[in-house]
Amino acid sequence: MLLNKRIPATYILKKIKLEVLYVLIIGLLVNYLTGEYKNLIPEMPIAIPTFIGTAISVILSFKINQSYDRWWEARKVWGSIVNDSRSFVLQLQSFISHAKRDEIKEIAYRHIAWCFSLGQTLRGNDPLENLERYINEKDLKSISSHNNKPLALLQLNTLQIAALREHGALELYSHVQINSTLVNFSNEMGMAERIKSTVFPTTYRLFLHFFIYIFVVTLSIALRNIDSFFEIPLLLVISSAFFLLEKSASHLQDPFNNKPTDTAVTTIATNIEINIKQLLNENEVPAPFPPSGYYAI
Amino acid sequence: MLLNKRIPATYILKKIKLEVLYVLIIGLLVNYLTGEYKNLIPEMPIAIPTFIGTAISVILSFKINQSYDRWWEARKVWGSIVNDSRSFVLQLQSFISHAKRDEIKEIAYRHIAWCFSLGQTLRGNDPLENLERYINEKDLKSISSHNNKPLALLQLNTLQIAALREHGALELYSHVQINSTLVNFSNEMGMAERIKSTVFPTTYRLFLHFFIYIFVVTLSIALRNIDSFFEIPLLLVISSAFFLLEKSASHLQDPFNNKPTDTAVTTIATNIEINIKQLLNENEVPAPFPPSGYYAI
Amino acid sequence: MLLNKRIPATYILKKIKLEVLYVLIIGLLVNYLTGEYKNLIPEMPIAIPTFIGTAISVILSFKINQSYDRWWEARKVWGSIVNDSRSFVLQLQSFISHAKRDEIKEIAYRHIAWCFSLGQTLRGNDPLENLERYINEKDLKSISSHNNKPLALLQLNTLQIAALREHGALELYSHVQINSTLVNFSNEMGMAERIKSTVFPTTYRLFLHFFIYIFVVTLSIALRNIDSFFEIPLLLVISSAFFLLEKSASHLQDPFNNKPTDTAVTTIATNIEINIKQLLNENEVPAPFPPSGYYAI
Amino acid sequence: MLLNKRIPATYILKKIKLEVLYVLIIGLLVNYLTGEYKNLIPEMPIAIPTFIGTAISVILSFKINQSYDRWWEARKVWGSIVNDSRSFVLQLQSFISHAKRDEIKEIAYRHIAWCFSLGQTLRGNDPLENLERYINEKDLKSISSHNNKPLALLQLNTLQIAALREHGALELYSHVQINSTLVNFSNEMGMAERIKSTVFPTTYRLFLHFFIYIFVVTLSIALRNIDSFFEIPLLLVISSAFFLLEKSASHLQDPFNNKPTDTAVTTIATNIEINIKQLLNENEVPAPFPPSGYYAI
Amino acid sequence: MLLNKRIPATYILKKIKLEVLYVLIIGLLVNYLTGEYKNLIPEMPIAIPTFIGTAISVILSFKINQSYDRWWEARKVWGSIVNDSRSFVLQLQSFISHAKRDEIKEIAYRHIAWCFSLGQTLRGNDPLENLERYINEKDLKSISSHNNKPLALLQLNTLQIAALREHGALELYSHVQINSTLVNFSNEMGMAERIKSTVFPTTYRLFLHFFIYIFVVTLSIALRNIDSFFEIPLLLVISSAFFLLEKSASHLQDPFNNKPTDTAVTTIATNIEINIKQLLNENEVPAPFPPSGYYAI
Repeated sequence: MLLNKRIPATYILKKIKLEVLYVLIIGLLVNYLTGEYKNLIPEMPIAIPTFIGTAISVILSFKINQSYDRWWEARKVWGSIVNDSRSFVLQLQSFISHAKRDEIKEIAYRHIAWCFSLGQTLRGNDPLENLERYINEKDLKSISSHNNKPLALLQLNTLQIAALREHGALELYSHVQINSTLVNFSNEMGMAERIKSTVFPTTYRLFLHFFIYIFVVTLSIALRNIDSFFEIPLLLVISSAFFLLEKSASHLQDPFNNKPTDTAVTTIATNIEINIKQLLNENEVPAPFPPSGYYAI
Repeated sequence: MLLNKRIPATYILKKIKLEVLYVLIIGLLVNYLTGEYKNLIPEMPIAIPTFIGTAISVILSFKINQSYDRWWEARKVWGSIVNDSRSFVLQLQSFISHAKRDEIKEIAYRHIAWCFSLGQTLRGNDPLENLERYINEKDLKSISSHNNKPLALLQLNTLQIAALREHGALELYSHVQINSTLVNFSNEMGMAERIKSTVFPTTYRLFLHFFIYIFVVTLSIALRNIDSFFEIPLLLVISSAFFLLEKSASHLQDPFNNKPTDTAVTTIATNIEINIKQLLNENEVPAPFPPSGYYAI
Repeated sequence: MLLNKRIPATYILKKIKLEVLYVLIIGLLVNYLTGEYKNLIPEMPIAIPTFIGTAISVILSFKINQSYDRWWEARKVWGSIVNDSRSFVLQLQSFISHAKRDEIKEIAYRHIAWCFSLGQTLRGNDPLENLERYINEKDLKSISSHNNKPLALLQLNTLQIAALREHGALELYSHVQINSTLVNFSNEMGMAERIKSTVFPTTYRLFLHFFIYIFVVTLSIALRNIDSFFEIPLLLVISSAFFLLEKSASHLQDPFNNKPTDTAVTTIATNIEINIKQLLNENEVPAPFPPSGYYAI
Repeated sequence: MLLNKRIPATYILKKIKLEVLYVLIIGLLVNYLTGEYKNLIPEMPIAIPTFIGTAISVILSFKINQSYDRWWEARKVWGSIVNDSRSFVLQLQSFISHAKRDEIKEIAYRHIAWCFSLGQTLRGNDPLENLERYINEKDLKSISSHNNKPLALLQLNTLQIAALREHGALELYSHVQINSTLVNFSNEMGMAERIKSTVFPTTYRLFLHFFIYIFVVTLSIALRNIDSFFEIPLLLVISSAFFLLEKSASHLQDPFNNKPTDTAVTTIATNIEINIKQLLNENEVPAPFPPSGYYAI
Repeated sequence: MLLNKRIPATYILKKIKLEVLYVLIIGLLVNYLTGEYKNLIPEMPIAIPTFIGTAISVILSFKINQSYDRWWEARKVWGSIVNDSRSFVLQLQSFISHAKRDEIKEIAYRHIAWCFSLGQTLRGNDPLENLERYINEKDLKSISSHNNKPLALLQLNTLQIAALREHGALELYSHVQINSTLVNFSNEMGMAERIKSTVFPTTYRLFLHFFIYIFVVTLSIALRNIDSFFEIPLLLVISSAFFLLEKSASHLQDPFNNKPTDTAVTTIATNIEINIKQLLNENEVPAPFPPSGYYAI
């Protein structure tokens, strides 16, 4: 997540350097051609790039809005994970007999492991990294054979809670209530995976790029009478406006990609760890995960 | 689902070849007529195609957004099927006595059959294809008389779970909790069928095509003074921009049509199979369903 | 619901014939006046109709989107009725003792009656039509005194299920689960009634028509220099673009009006009947309700 | 709620008479000044009002859409009240022993009182008006000390139902199911209050008015060369287009204001009364609340 | 929340004074340069600022809509807190035995403390301010060690209710129903925290400012022929239109920032206090929290 700090200009310019270069080449080329073959190339009414600009702005505003929705949905999913994690621990404390305090802690810690493991999985990183802090050897070994580590962790918790019910430490009805929270975790995990694995319709991006280049070509012909000393920068500024918007949207639309615009899952998982440990009356809680310069990861 | 791979240009061009041909013919015809009957056909102010362009962009942005919503809703429905399938198996394991391990497996396998059969039904393919891998002869025969095979499979699972309750292997309250998950499956099945069976308002597509052709005619008259060597390509580029957007939207809006832009239901159902089998501690799980070139089906 | 079949041109043109006639009259009148009193009527800059065009496109895109949302919500409501109807029968079979098989069938048939009666009520048709196929004389008589027939049918089912509970054929907790499904039916009925009874803000339609006529007047003055042989068709095409969009939106926004653009409630209710009868293992099921030419009702 | 009847022109014109007057004054003033000081005031390119028109249309389409959402949400809330009121009575009849028929009626009548009282409160009218028709003296007195009368009525019903449970006329589990419906009433009441008490961001309205006047000034300077006999009406028509849209949106966004565009809460509450009385098998039900001319209140 | 009262002009102008100053400087500078180096700086077609204006309006309408959604979501979250707070007290009174009247009051008062503390936390103020009015010394001390004070308060209430269940003052099933309301509080707290802690994508704001300045530069070159006495005010008015919209959106998008545009959490929490105390039959209730001039906090 980008913070409200000063974002380095290099971060922004790096995004579109290739596109700007192409526009520069196109601008110079058109400039040369219209100079050389003045009589062959006819006047281009400014209305032509305007029509293409209309198509561009239709796709752009579609893409900006939908990518924001994906990004916001990803954030909402992780917000729900925070809320349900807190409710989960409060439910364990409310419904399971106090004699099982150690098992409550074991389940709660395994849930912290689930949060971190889910974040790592979504970003394509090692899903077992640092999990030994929260779960024991046996658990680690048991989940290693699964394709989907967070799902395996969730199964361990589900089965341990069912065992508590069988041993009489939990009543039937409260068992079902806790089960509803586990169903929420399953839903949240699946929703995040859906956002991760669903590719935003790729054709729109192709068309958008194609239209912007057509726009640049027609605009540069239309502006042929302006001194190239002024025309080229103008072209660059207007086209980079469109490219920057497209790039920003593209980054938002994939919020689990190890990028500065990612949903800050590590920060959130650390906050969940702090919350859960304080609800368990632990004395040692970790510090909030620090931001990396102008963004939080 | 189109992947982030290089999409073949032929795939895109094939979509609009007919429309481009029509525009070419219109362009040449107008060109010939305005040349031949110069004095009869008056000047066309460029504002006229602009007004039509306004109507086009209003419908286009409506259509792009709503078709995306349909596509995204279809994906969400299948995402919910993934989540509820996982929760379903975890609930069977939590609430049904261990002695009935075989029945749990039978129910879980029948649920995998339900996923594949639903996917096939939505796409208009044979809903019984490969189901013998997951259900027995008796089930296959029993569902064959139903119009709606997935619904028949859902009924088999519902009744078997009710029988478990009658035989005391499941408590009343947990029975109801599992029933809520079965209700979710019924909802998800119905939501996918709704998207499949509801035709997007057809008049908008008609109007859009009609307006684009009017746009092409008026624009080509307005550009009569430009050399046809330049004018025709310009017409083709601008009109194909509009046609491409319309086609992309049309493909998104019907996500169960055996097309590369489909929701990847086979891939998803295979993932569910893997998840369920690993939750059941099976040793042999299938490999993820491989993408077909630039798309996953 | 309009189908993907060829829609007769007459269907579309009939919608706007009056408006097109008015525009024709306006165009001819302005043409005559500007010819007659050339010196009195000043030049009209093309920017004036452009400004009005802006206001028109703001309302049009608002109206198209919101009317689609109403139409889609109506379809969703009927989709939920399908889903809950299936779940309802499965719940009756799961929770009510087998000895009461006859009552289950009676309740299920009365529910089919509810679906048809609701569809008829929404369209303003006779809500009792054909109900004798599904419910007995006593029921028919009992509901006839109610203003809201579907609500009366729902009450009959609710009370019969409560009586089953009292007679011990249904446990308390499963009774409540079935009650939740009945609450869903009540909600869906009310949601459809809300869409039916809520008039879309009428002023927007008035303004839209008013602005389109103003647009036509100013545009026809602005185009005074074009030969009327070309100008009048241009006016008709551009204004009919706007009128067609407005009409299409208006039809979508009232989806229970006995029009081809209606939500296909008869088709859906017939499908529910088929589903329910097959879930009840009936041998005779009706055929799907056939479409009427280019639309399904 | 405005009906589909002919809306009096006076109703619409009254809304913007002040704004139209201001525009008239501005138009005449600019006309006089540009005539008097022709050389001092430079040409105004038509692009200037175009830019301002862009800003206006951005805010207008935002405002029209969001105000419609508020209006539609208010209607949905009252739709939910209808649905839950019906379900509430059906639940009372299903779960409370028949011996308590009188108390069921008392609770149901108090609920009707709640509907009317909520409608009156939202509109800022006397929340106790006519309540003596539905509740007894003691209730009336007991709620009079509360700031929020509907909440007090809801508490009375909640406590009476809890007392029924204590006296054994209601089982624990069905008590909780009915309680969920009471929670819905609390939510719906709060949602309507939220719409009532939340002021739509006021700055947008200020800016919109400000921009429209700037638009009028710049446009009237730009049109200086047109005869004022034509220019002033043009200005009035275009600016009134914008003002009318703004006013319509403003009215929709406050749907509980005793205006013709209000959500028709009195009509809806009367329908609830009819439904509830018929579910209770009462013989005397009121007539539907009649519309007042071109609107229903 | 800004009220419908007259908003001081200074409040609005203060927002954009810096930006207006920059525009003034740019305008004067361009004016000087175009005067001095007339032959060097070419004509700027008005179409150039138009293209940039398109990009600006795409981002502006995106930003205005999404920031409104955040603001409205924040308001909805606090609306849900109101509704659930009322339901919570009614549930305590319904389900907990009357003998525990004192504990009910203690829990309800601690809940009021939770509301105020949550509001203070969101705004970055002291979360313990005035809490001594509602909770005792022991509670105050116990929560002081937690990072998240409202969560600690919620835990205290959750555990006290669980203790009531253990002591038999509350039945299992009603315990679970109350627990669902506590889960709602946890969700609402987390949703408000999410809105607070998620930075709106910062790049859009950067691009918007950048594009507006480019717009100003190109527009001022394009208007070079207009007397600077008129040109500069024109530039200021048009650019301030864009800046004001951007600022208004930025303020809405962070609704817990101690600004006049904040969600009025103090007012809402006070209303909850009044509601809860009247439901508890307290005689002394506070007065509604008064607005501060043109806004409520």
